[in-house]
Amino acid sequence: MPSDDQAPTLAASVPQPDGTPERLRRQIEFIIEVDQLKNVFRQSPLLAADRRENDAEHSWHLALMTLLLAEYADEPIDRSKVLAMVVLHDLVEIYAGDTFLYDTAASADQEERERAAADRLFAILPNDQRDHFRALWDEFEERASAEARFAKAMDRLQPLLLNYGNRGGTWRTPGVTDADVLARKSVIGDASAELWSYARTLIRTGADHGWVPRAEAGPRS
Amino acid sequence: MPSDDQAPTLAASVPQPDGTPERLRRQIEFIIEVDQLKNVFRQSPLLAADRRENDAEHSWHLALMTLLLAEYADEPIDRSKVLAMVVLHDLVEIYAGDTFLYDTAASADQEERERAAADRLFAILPNDQRDHFRALWDEFEERASAEARFAKAMDRLQPLLLNYGNRGGTWRTPGVTDADVLARKSVIGDASAELWSYARTLIRTGADHGWVPRAEAGPRS
Repeated sequence: MPSDDQAPTLAASVPQPDGTPERLRRQIEFIIEVDQLKNVFRQSPLLAADRRENDAEHSWHLALMTLLLAEYADEPIDRSKVLAMVVLHDLVEIYAGDTFLYDTAASADQEERERAAADRLFAILPNDQRDHFRALWDEFEERASAEARFAKAMDRLQPLLLNYGNRGGTWRTPGVTDADVLARKSVIGDASAELWSYARTLIRTGADHGWVPRAEAGPRS
Repeated sequence: MPSDDQAPTLAASVPQPDGTPERLRRQIEFIIEVDQLKNVFRQSPLLAADRRENDAEHSWHLALMTLLLAEYADEPIDRSKVLAMVVLHDLVEIYAGDTFLYDTAASADQEERERAAADRLFAILPNDQRDHFRALWDEFEERASAEARFAKAMDRLQPLLLNYGNRGGTWRTPGVTDADVLARKSVIGDASAELWSYARTLIRTGADHGWVPRAEAGPRS
């Protein structure tokens, strides 16, 4: 493994053939390096199999959802830009790891860890693509545009569907209540009133079924 | 499980809340149904972990590659359309299964199986989105546009990178030679001369290293 913090790790183990043009070589190294996203596991359980979801599958699911649900955006959005955002939004977790939405301790230094990871990962790319990807990721993180808000809404709605379909999933994490879920998911409403209405119905139905405890049912941990 | 061939299977096990609007309900059912793509496994081994790749991860990887490599397309392409194609190109395998590129027996009825799967799967969607997704998938399958040819090139280049990085991978399938790989991958050249030149270099380098047998080295099975 290289000691340089800016160097790729996985891609360094796959030397490119002599004569590969410099620009293409950097692009291919990035494509190889991000294979690791398939090995970053989230807390959310799949519906289709008895295992947790990984970030690559999750990102694909958001892209598919964007194709189908873009019509619900309350503001005009450039669908192509949303697709780019959801495809790359979790790449920093290759180096920074997945931070569970309901883990407040890990969330404390999440921003710093992810920014360092972005510096390191995107540096593999040619400079123009490095800057473009970084700008898209910053915009997503800051919810600084209609596209970023819609991408973030997809990112929050998708695990809600997995938890609802699994009759609980990560809703059953000790200490989590329906009020926590509502609070963490409210950013959906910044992108789409209709999808936020649907999301609230899912959470309410989940609480009705006992898949997530109600906030008033007991003390908060 | 429903007996109707046109009905969803997984989505039927996740009833939507009362009052969900009909159009949104069909879209959400589709989003749930396609969770199964994460459970369709390909022959290709990952680089980042010791297991085979699934279709959802693969589709995400193609979307990421499209973002980086679109500049190599020999014809003008609408990147947004390519992204949509690669996101949905393998959905039919949820019902039809993955057909290995070098399995000529399974390839015989592949087209028929996949068309039946497309009829069944896309019927879950609202009619306008059903028709749109089906048209995109048909266009991809027939390589009927510059976008379809580029999407297909991504689909062929990605496992080449995995095999090269794994010093063989599915290139080591009994009976497969470098000539077979070159023949199956030549559609890359229909989309991009530069990427096809790079792909040929990978295959030649793989043969030089003994990761794929040369066609002249022995009889073909």
